[in-house]
Amino acid sequence: MAAPAKRFDEPERSALEAAQALVRDDLDRVNRLILERLQSEVSLIPELARHLIVAGGKRIRPMLTLLSARLCGYTGEHHVALATAVEFIHTATLLHDDVVDDSDLRRGKATANALWGNKAPVLVGDFLFSRAFQLMVGVGDLEVLGILARASAVIAEGEVLQLVTANDTATSEEAYLAMIAGKTAALFEAACEVGAVVAGRPAAEARALATYGRALGMAFQLVDDALDYAAREAELGKAVGDDFRDGKITLPVLVAFAKGDEAEREFWRRTLERVEQDERDLAEAQRLLARHRAIEATLERAQAYGRTARQALAPFPSSKAKEALLGLVDFCIHRTY
Amino acid sequence: MAAPAKRFDEPERSALEAAQALVRDDLDRVNRLILERLQSEVSLIPELARHLIVAGGKRIRPMLTLLSARLCGYTGEHHVALATAVEFIHTATLLHDDVVDDSDLRRGKATANALWGNKAPVLVGDFLFSRAFQLMVGVGDLEVLGILARASAVIAEGEVLQLVTANDTATSEEAYLAMIAGKTAALFEAACEVGAVVAGRPAAEARALATYGRALGMAFQLVDDALDYAAREAELGKAVGDDFRDGKITLPVLVAFAKGDEAEREFWRRTLERVEQDERDLAEAQRLLARHRAIEATLERAQAYGRTARQALAPFPSSKAKEALLGLVDFCIHRTY
Repeated sequence: MAAPAKRFDEPERSALEAAQALVRDDLDRVNRLILERLQSEVSLIPELARHLIVAGGKRIRPMLTLLSARLCGYTGEHHVALATAVEFIHTATLLHDDVVDDSDLRRGKATANALWGNKAPVLVGDFLFSRAFQLMVGVGDLEVLGILARASAVIAEGEVLQLVTANDTATSEEAYLAMIAGKTAALFEAACEVGAVVAGRPAAEARALATYGRALGMAFQLVDDALDYAAREAELGKAVGDDFRDGKITLPVLVAFAKGDEAEREFWRRTLERVEQDERDLAEAQRLLARHRAIEATLERAQAYGRTARQALAPFPSSKAKEALLGLVDFCIHRTY
Repeated sequence: MAAPAKRFDEPERSALEAAQALVRDDLDRVNRLILERLQSEVSLIPELARHLIVAGGKRIRPMLTLLSARLCGYTGEHHVALATAVEFIHTATLLHDDVVDDSDLRRGKATANALWGNKAPVLVGDFLFSRAFQLMVGVGDLEVLGILARASAVIAEGEVLQLVTANDTATSEEAYLAMIAGKTAALFEAACEVGAVVAGRPAAEARALATYGRALGMAFQLVDDALDYAAREAELGKAVGDDFRDGKITLPVLVAFAKGDEAEREFWRRTLERVEQDERDLAEAQRLLARHRAIEATLERAQAYGRTARQALAPFPSSKAKEALLGLVDFCIHRTY
């Protein structure tokens, strides 16, 4: 199947679509395997999981496994099961990340939890996590199991760190980067690494792909944090300002806080630490971020990670898979959704 | 180390202590490995997990792995890591089972959630679950990984079933048994089975131990459900009537509901389906259970599972490990806490 013609007005979307087109057949098999392994005699499980997992998403993480395997010349069948396992782990973390406390419920989130309460999404996440490990057992490669089990532990650590640093404007940039390295970059890294491992490639190639995936994940999350303040809502497909309303401390805020005067810092403390906000505060936050070029600083940091990701692929000879992986760097850095 | 002298006034406690004494050294190693693998740079993780896991519990599940491996003549080292993995999975499910919704929080549960909110226990559960799989990867046996990954999926299914049947007095006995087979018996079963598998014993022995563990788990849960209405609180170490207050449908209730007249059924519907309760209702529930000998019927069912468990061990020659496993059947059936 040919890649769709490049639209020069939307280079980043085109890069994503080109990557998707290259592994379209494999992605279709991943989607079928997702549906198959979601099945359970307990009907609430596929019902609830479908809500999140079949509805879509960009499928970037499973695509990384498929493209990494292809980059490494893999011709077997296991990459599809591994890509599915990666997507299940990702979905489980989304379900668990949406768990809310009493106070949050009153803020009225429209997540799976609003529909099913807190408990069902937690248990369905556990089911998906277990299914992910069953898929890996089916592949039968202990190294792959070790990589994804370790990544899962690191993700949980990153999520706990996020909880600990939420509402704390004294969070250091270092602590923030450690947090997103865990909650986001660890799975990007593992998704790429297992593609090389399943292909039986030398450790140096697996390490190069791990470096690529980790840097890509960092860039992805930094852009995510910028978009939460700077996106056009219609493109983003969700409300701008979610992080702000949750009191999340992200890099744009840390940059503006560091450069701000005492009155500005008090604004951030009131809105993010004490979470006392009125309807004009998001606009004021955006004004302060603009004054200190905080979005630009965040995107520059993302671009630096993008360069690291590209360099990591240098040892691999030219191929369509390499072109697609390089294209995903462009997508992650320049995306507007 | 010698087993403590048998106290004939407390045969069931004595059986538990004899089993613990037999594998005391291994249990100590499990406890050390638990502490070691709980470690994380994110200090909230060991802090929160310790609250639940180090505080104790009977360690029945890891003991099953240790005793099963010993019954099968295992002389290696891997049983300690597997027993630790089993305890981590158990603790993760406890943490996730304590997740509450808005309405429950107002009932004021004194769980980890009351101290840390809902989200941290969920994420720490995920961490423990991941650590469990890392421990298994260290053991390097894919069959063991498959058994425990499958058990984890079945546990999640059982927990979702419990959610679906809660507050529903029309639950069938069959649905109730399927639910406890998942939420409780599956891990007992897997804990025993992996002991045989790691010892490299023939499939028939692994199946026999799986049958023993599954039946023991069923008996354990049935007695748990009986104790929730019939225990002396000082012995149980927690409040009697928790299941009643949560509107949980358990076998004692199903027996009394089936035998009750319409007024009694309306009592159960009001208290368990609509969860409209006042302070006299628990006593009334206990009176109705006594009238229909529902506790006795539940314990008889537990005894039948106990016989199945004992029979499953028949093919194994006499040994101290076998004696301890038989003793655990007595403990699970006759325990008062």
